[in-house]
Amino acid sequence: MNETPTSFSFGMIGLGTMGRNLLLNLADHDFAVAGYDKDASKVSLLAEEGAGLPVRGFSSLPEFISSLGTPRAIMMLVPAGPIVDSVIEELRPLLQPGDIIIDGGNSHFTDTNRRDAALAAAGFHFFGMGISGGEEGARFGPSMMPGGDRQAYQVVQLMFEAIAARVDDEPCVTYIGPGAAGHFVKMVHNGIEYGLMQLIAETYELLKRGLGLDNAAIGEVFAQWNSGRLQSFLLDITKDIFTFQAPGTDHLLLDDIKDEARSKGTGKWTSQVAQELEMAIPTIDTAVAMRDLSKYKALREKLATLYGPEPAALDVDREAFLESLEQAFYFNMVITYAQGMHLLAKASKDYGYGLQLAEIAKIWRGGCIIRSRFLSDIFNAFQHAPDLAHLLLDEPVRALVSAAVPGARTVVAAAVTAGIAAPAYAASLSYFDTFRSARMPSNLIQAQRDFFGAHTYELIGHEGVFHTQWTPAHEDAANKQDTFTGPANQNEQPVIPNK
Amino acid sequence: MNETPTSFSFGMIGLGTMGRNLLLNLADHDFAVAGYDKDASKVSLLAEEGAGLPVRGFSSLPEFISSLGTPRAIMMLVPAGPIVDSVIEELRPLLQPGDIIIDGGNSHFTDTNRRDAALAAAGFHFFGMGISGGEEGARFGPSMMPGGDRQAYQVVQLMFEAIAARVDDEPCVTYIGPGAAGHFVKMVHNGIEYGLMQLIAETYELLKRGLGLDNAAIGEVFAQWNSGRLQSFLLDITKDIFTFQAPGTDHLLLDDIKDEARSKGTGKWTSQVAQELEMAIPTIDTAVAMRDLSKYKALREKLATLYGPEPAALDVDREAFLESLEQAFYFNMVITYAQGMHLLAKASKDYGYGLQLAEIAKIWRGGCIIRSRFLSDIFNAFQHAPDLAHLLLDEPVRALVSAAVPGARTVVAAAVTAGIAAPAYAASLSYFDTFRSARMPSNLIQAQRDFFGAHTYELIGHEGVFHTQWTPAHEDAANKQDTFTGPANQNEQPVIPNK
Repeated sequence: MNETPTSFSFGMIGLGTMGRNLLLNLADHDFAVAGYDKDASKVSLLAEEGAGLPVRGFSSLPEFISSLGTPRAIMMLVPAGPIVDSVIEELRPLLQPGDIIIDGGNSHFTDTNRRDAALAAAGFHFFGMGISGGEEGARFGPSMMPGGDRQAYQVVQLMFEAIAARVDDEPCVTYIGPGAAGHFVKMVHNGIEYGLMQLIAETYELLKRGLGLDNAAIGEVFAQWNSGRLQSFLLDITKDIFTFQAPGTDHLLLDDIKDEARSKGTGKWTSQVAQELEMAIPTIDTAVAMRDLSKYKALREKLATLYGPEPAALDVDREAFLESLEQAFYFNMVITYAQGMHLLAKASKDYGYGLQLAEIAKIWRGGCIIRSRFLSDIFNAFQHAPDLAHLLLDEPVRALVSAAVPGARTVVAAAVTAGIAAPAYAASLSYFDTFRSARMPSNLIQAQRDFFGAHTYELIGHEGVFHTQWTPAHEDAANKQDTFTGPANQNEQPVIPNK
Repeated sequence: MNETPTSFSFGMIGLGTMGRNLLLNLADHDFAVAGYDKDASKVSLLAEEGAGLPVRGFSSLPEFISSLGTPRAIMMLVPAGPIVDSVIEELRPLLQPGDIIIDGGNSHFTDTNRRDAALAAAGFHFFGMGISGGEEGARFGPSMMPGGDRQAYQVVQLMFEAIAARVDDEPCVTYIGPGAAGHFVKMVHNGIEYGLMQLIAETYELLKRGLGLDNAAIGEVFAQWNSGRLQSFLLDITKDIFTFQAPGTDHLLLDDIKDEARSKGTGKWTSQVAQELEMAIPTIDTAVAMRDLSKYKALREKLATLYGPEPAALDVDREAFLESLEQAFYFNMVITYAQGMHLLAKASKDYGYGLQLAEIAKIWRGGCIIRSRFLSDIFNAFQHAPDLAHLLLDEPVRALVSAAVPGARTVVAAAVTAGIAAPAYAASLSYFDTFRSARMPSNLIQAQRDFFGAHTYELIGHEGVFHTQWTPAHEDAANKQDTFTGPANQNEQPVIPNK
């Protein structure tokens, strides 16, 4: 760099791809910044990439700390889990009360809660910040979800607003809420991302196996969709993947890649937390499950021989089916976002995050992996009705979804008939058809639970819970207390929740 | 009772329905047993129900403990969670090393691990035992899944074998494995139960909305199925529910029950643990999610008005469709059990449980909620090949499933076309079609992950992991280290798992 500032205004711990790129982004915007990594090669890389910029790397933690102006603002971008705790332990003796520690990684929100409490008690400011956009986003404009200590956020707010992605000249960063709100929202962002990626993968399958399209034609479909209402970052990179040749060959690199999907766990966390909150997000659950299933390659190959043949191509009019598929994709995309937003609303209520769903949709419009044209519709829906209980209640969304439902039905029916796997498509449609059921068959489940476990049930139009002895009691077990139809004595419920 | 023994051979803490019934069951088999509950009314109830039997209730814990012969064998049947810990705390000062504590409730297996370690360190024997069968099972023969301290189990083994359900004159109880194996297996049992109950509920929906059958006709279908290869406890009670009139009326009690399903959490735990173990059990996940969705009654009613009309009856030949539905039910039932068994196999490996899947299928054939004729097929499959990687690999099962697949396709296609929700049917078919895919479209997911997050991918026929710079790097971010196709430097992966 041309001049080495003696006091840097921001420090980064962890100079991997994301950490370096975020620092370079800050330096591009004239913030003097410092980075630290134990690995000297990464420090060198930062120096190389940051030549001419106000950025400096350190491989000594004390020197790094001393180089920062006070109150210090230090972000960690290190792998989620115990490493975050050990970095905090190393840092603490070198810091002063009032210093700000930012966890910019994908920490589990419960870890963030714990660290927040411990660091606040010690006089430090802490906030957890979700960052999305991958390496490109970090370098040229990510979407950022800071949550926790609002006062601390205000110290660094201008910096983050300067480096964030911008849409309609507004930065894709906003204070999300107290505690672990930022990490929670980022987790759900990733859950939605799992859903959308699974959707695109199934579409690839339907185009390839169902319509028998070659890669060029599949890429064209994605490219065409990406120029319309389905425009999104994920479709954008997908169309590029369908033009990327394996070096030195005449075929796509895609065709050489193993069909075993990996994951870092944030989709799984989303599903687990949704279950904890008793929220149905089956499309995201399905995406997680299908990544898991993909890893059983050898077993899949065996089952393919036992349960063949491979699905035959669909006997459909190609153009008409493509139109249905576009509708189905749109439908499924809406359902995926809707499940994520519904989960956010529930978490906001249960965890006291006070989330502004419109603001969240707004900062997701740029920089992040799930950015898409449709996020403006979500923004509009929650801007118009901040307490909207579900995205499907919004009138413009309703009109669009209703028009897309027939295509969704056509595609799922064709897939299941032909034996082509389209699990997320099917799960989204099932979710929709269940949710639009004023009356579900769940009364039968309640009857069964009461029958075998005396778990009680509720009656339409009557307060209270009831228990019935559904069969005549055995002679030798005549238990008058259990043999009645009427309000159950709550104390008389079985002490073992046996169901 | 006729004679009060001065020393009882078994003690029960918690005299709710399950605790009382299990004690009475033991007393029926001439074991002299004692029970304790803080609630004096439950102690009286035990005395009343146990008149003439060698059973005695106490409302003083020290008196209860003193009444037991040593080494004492004491079971707790109290609500899972902190109450179990507080009971153990109360108990410990009254016990002697060598005494046996049995947790017969539905404790989370991680709690059982923790308690096992703490109690073993203090010189006590501890084991966690899953019990299934509801109140009727507890009274006249449950299925029991004891795990943990094998030596302790042997002390009470004869008692449990005496009171367990019997099939082919073999007791439905066996030592499951070390640690929390018993509670883990019981949890998965319950997960399967959730799946099967959802399946029956969806069948009810298809018969009612799809075929327009009245309750009597629906009950007949279930009764008929229950007399054939689908025979199961759950179908058995379902057919009875379809004959149970609301007292003083001329309609079924079922029709008066609210369609909001409750749960105690064991299904949710199964899904969460499966995700932790990276195992796909989408049918069970769906069952959990649909219980959650059922609770949003007001929202469902709103969505029904926005996304109507209600599904019309299917335009199908009734008899032919019923035949397809029977196939579909069979198919879905097999898939549900198969997912549970697959999860058990994985847990056995990861947690070192050494589970004998044939033995587990065997003790599930009687007494428990998921008992069914098909469990004999599962028993045979794992008896024949103890290391069978998946139930669908078994040849007899393969033949049966293959014959049932066409019906499953017919039913799901009809449901999605008509807009009738059949989420578990759809999820099972998706799982099957994915699992029989030698090649999944997950290569695209891996390409996307590497594109936006440098998460690397694997290549067919090459060792190692690879990273590609999928787009030309920005001029000002030229990063030669990231711009290559070839083996990735593992240390150069992004430190923030940004996906």
